[in-house]
Order: sequence, then structure tokens, then C-alpha cells
Amino acid sequence: MTDTVISSATREVVIGFDRPFVVIGERINPTGRRRLAEEMAAGDYRRVETDAVAQVQAGARMLDVNAGVPLADEPRILRECVELVQSLTDAPLSIDSSIVAALEAGLDAYRGKALVNSVTGEEERLESVLPLIARHGAAVVAISNDETGISEDPDVRFEVARKIVERAADHGIPRSDVVVDPLVMPIGAIGEAGRTTFRLIRRLREELEVNTTCGASNISFGLPARPALNAAFLSMGMASGLTSAITNPLEPEIMTALGAADVMMGHDRNCRAWIARNSGAGAGGDAIAEARARRRQGRRRGG
Amino acid sequence: MTDTVISSATREVVIGFDRPFVVIGERINPTGRRRLAEEMAAGDYRRVETDAVAQVQAGARMLDVNAGVPLADEPRILRECVELVQSLTDAPLSIDSSIVAALEAGLDAYRGKALVNSVTGEEERLESVLPLIARHGAAVVAISNDETGISEDPDVRFEVARKIVERAADHGIPRSDVVVDPLVMPIGAIGEAGRTTFRLIRRLREELEVNTTCGASNISFGLPARPALNAAFLSMGMASGLTSAITNPLEPEIMTALGAADVMMGHDRNCRAWIARNSGAGAGGDAIAEARARRRQGRRRGG
Repeated sequence: MTDTVISSATREVVIGFDRPFVVIGERINPTGRRRLAEEMAAGDYRRVETDAVAQVQAGARMLDVNAGVPLADEPRILRECVELVQSLTDAPLSIDSSIVAALEAGLDAYRGKALVNSVTGEEERLESVLPLIARHGAAVVAISNDETGISEDPDVRFEVARKIVERAADHGIPRSDVVVDPLVMPIGAIGEAGRTTFRLIRRLREELEVNTTCGASNISFGLPARPALNAAFLSMGMASGLTSAITNPLEPEIMTALGAADVMMGHDRNCRAWIARNSGAGAGGDAIAEARARRRQGRRRGG
Repeated sequence: MTDTVISSATREVVIGFDRPFVVIGERINPTGRRRLAEEMAAGDYRRVETDAVAQVQAGARMLDVNAGVPLADEPRILRECVELVQSLTDAPLSIDSSIVAALEAGLDAYRGKALVNSVTGEEERLESVLPLIARHGAAVVAISNDETGISEDPDVRFEVARKIVERAADHGIPRSDVVVDPLVMPIGAIGEAGRTTFRLIRRLREELEVNTTCGASNISFGLPARPALNAAFLSMGMASGLTSAITNPLEPEIMTALGAADVMMGHDRNCRAWIARNSGAGAGGDAIAEARARRRQGRRRGG
């Protein structure tokens, strides 16, 4: 049983084997969102504000903050966004960048124990990010690729994850502070992507005993009806041992599936959260309509 | 890799490890449907007709036929329903009764290789049902309880399943013709019911190498928004190795989840079925609305 504790200044969230699934809101990320990228570069963070609030209201217990705008001053933007989001919500943050200086700027502005997204198995990345994690007492997302790229063999990716966990330990970072991302590939391109990921998640849980997270939306890239695919992927991931995901809480299909999967895992004691969310839905079951109504009402779900 | 072949006079359906999930329509069953029970007892089978056609149109590849009306002449009713349903659809049937004489009457009326639902690990039941299965060259659903009742320990249930498979072999029935039902308990009453079932399904697949089915709707008994719970349960069951289920194909949430889970398992080659079902749904993803529209249109799905 492994618990990963992440915190803001006033709130703690635990990712763990016997815990309700943790949704990390994915929306504060300019990748593929041209307008948000332009606004971020211009210092206009109004969309960041609304995304932060809406995601927490929809049930995200953590928020990912990424400021990867090409050619912009990413460390400054990430620092400003981290400060802004902290002022709006007490949800702990995942500080997300491929630039070490930006991670450092985000961590400097953060109050609490952050999740840093991410380190890979690449030598240069390991030796620049892990000391930063250790110095800030943060937790880290470990992505299971290295200099050789992303293997299609889940057992090779498992070994990369093991190497990162061992290297983290050398830096004094406990296994419980390493959350492994098995790397989700688009299933429209790679038909094995689902089974490969489930197998890897299971090994990470049973053999390496680490918590896991993933950028879930990637699974459905290029396909129609993406929320339904993401919902199935996440439920099936949970059955395989997945304990958190970076995904879109504004999609009612996804949040409904995650609530149901928490019931199935025995992580929703006496089905209380499910019953509270769906009371009045009746046996006919219009959970999606309920979720949409809830989103409109902007009612905040429990933490 | 285990394939269980079931057939009608003109159509074959294969339940198998590397095959698309097989939905067995649950609706032709008077249990808990008072009006249907009264009609069946009076020889009025109009609702059986509409249920048969609607379920196949909605994507059921097999139909369960149960005529368990208390105090009625069940063997006669089951025989008549089996004859009727065969005249309406080429979907292979699961002939479902707790009365051996009714199973026999249904089998006598059936053309093809039926799935007989069910045998348990109880001595008397084993020795009355298995010879019937062997004589008709049918396949059988094996329910993992015995004289001692239904154990809450999945490993005890596994041993009951193993006993049934071995006893079937003594009667000349191959393992591939035994489809094990792990017995799904209501999760509202037994919080462990999901995890217990997933564990058992995994052992049945990996160690006993049998196909599996289950009365999936039981998981959500007494809870609100049942289709969403059933959908999550089935997706998670598939990730654990479940290869078929007796469920309600008229629930769009369930059929959408199963289609998505088939994609995730790599059983929907090039995502063709998914794309065909959801073309026009767009990235916003209104798969449920699409499925409802499809149901209204009564368009028949492939395979």
C-alpha cells in the first residue's frame, strides 16, 4: 500500500492504492489551445482563472499547470500562473514543464508540497530534475521513456520506471513520492495501446508498488466520441491499478465513469458519494444529465 | 486462448479471449417483471417478440430466454419461447432455467448449439445438467456456488469453478464449452463485490483458461443511476478478462461503454466499429445521444 501525499498551503490530497481516484485537471495547458497560448504570452490569465475554478467545481482534486508557450518566457508565465491558481483554489498543483528553469520558478512560487511533472529516464533529465525535487521536498511524475525513446514493449517501460525510482532513492526521494506515468499512446494509431498500458500499470502497482498517473486523453486522439473512450480507458485503468490521472473533469462522461469505478473498487464507502451525486436520478439512470446539470449549477463536490 | 462457439441454425457467435465482447440480452426473463410474467403464463408472447427484436437491433449478439414464472408450466413456456425467438432472429440463444425439465424442453426445441444457463457446483445439479449438455452437444454456464452457498472468498469460488470444469470433462464436455459465471453480488450491500469479481475473473482467465459471463445488472441492485454503474463494472470486468455478459443492450450507456472497452482491448480492429457508430459525433463526443438515435432508428449493428 503506497500513499503519495500532495498538498497546498491549506489542503492535502492523497493518491493511494486504497483511496478514491484523484483527478488532476488538465485544462491549464496551452498545448493545442491557440487562444490560451496567445493570451498567456500576453499576460492575460482570465482563461486560466475560469479553468481553475471550473475544474475544481467539477471535481478535480488537483490541477495541472502548464505554461508551455513557444518562444515565451515560460519560467515567468508558469510562476505567475502558479501564484494565480493558488490564490483562487486550495487544490494542490502539478507543476508541469519540460524546461527545468520553469519547474524551478513554479516551485519557488508554490506553497505546499507540489507534484512536479515530470522527469523521464533520460540521464540529463534525471540529474537536473531529481535534485530540484529533493531540495523542495516535492513529489514527481516519472515518465517511462529514456534516451532510446518510448518502447512499445511494456516490460521495457517497466524497467525505465524502475531505474527512475532507484535513481530517485539515490537522491533521497522515497518511492512513495514517485508517481509513474506509463505513457499513453493513441489507440487509433496503436491498437495495442490499451492492453499495453493496463499490463504496465498492473506491474507498476504489484511489483514496483508505486502510484500511477497518466495523460488519459491521449488514448482517444484522432477518434470520435473521445470522452466515452477516455471514460472506458480510465475505468479499465483503475481495474488494473491506476490511482490518478491528468484528465478533463469538465467532461461529465468521464467524471461519471470515475465515480462509478470508485464504487466498483470499494473506494466509495457505502456508495455515499455515488448516491449523493445521483439521488433523484432513479433506476432509469440519467447520470450524465445529472452531471451536466451539476456542472451548470457549479455546485462544488466534496474534497 | 479459449473460444466458445455458440450457434443458431444459421449463425455462429464466438465468445473468446481475443474476440469482441459478446452481449447476451437479458430482457426475456419474467423475474421482477410482473406484467411479462402474467402474459407469459397466459400464453401471450407479444412482449417476448418485441424484446427479442429490440435487443438484437441494439447490439445483443445472443439472447437469454428465461420462462421462470412461478406455478406455471415452465417447460412448455420455455419451449414455446425458444421456438418463437428462433423464428424472429438468428441470434444464438442462452436457454435459462433452474428446472432441468425446462432446460430439456428448451434444448429439444432448439436448432443449433445452445448455451445452457446454468449448472452450479451442487452435486445433484451437476449430475442432472451435465449429461443433458453432453447429449445435446451444448455449452453451459457454470455458476461458482455449491452446497455450501456463495462464498465471499473469490478463491473458494475459483475452486468451485474448477470442480465444475473437471466434472464437465468427465462427461466429455470440453473446457471451451464451459463459460464460468463468477456470481456478481450487489455492491450496495457488499462493498468488496467489484474487486472480488475482478480478481476471480482474472484467475478464471489466467489459470483455468475459461471464458466468463455474468448477470452484470446485479452489481448495481438498489443504487441510483444503475446503467452508469453497470457500464463501469463491465468495462472493468473486460480489463480483468471478462469475455461476455448477460446484460441490457437497450441501455445506451452500457453499449457505448462496451464498444469503447472493445477498442481499449484491441478487439475493434482499426477502431472500425467505433468510428462507424460515432461518425458525426465529433470531438465533443455525444456517443450516448448517438446510441439513443440509433436505437430509435432501429438500425441493426453488424456481427
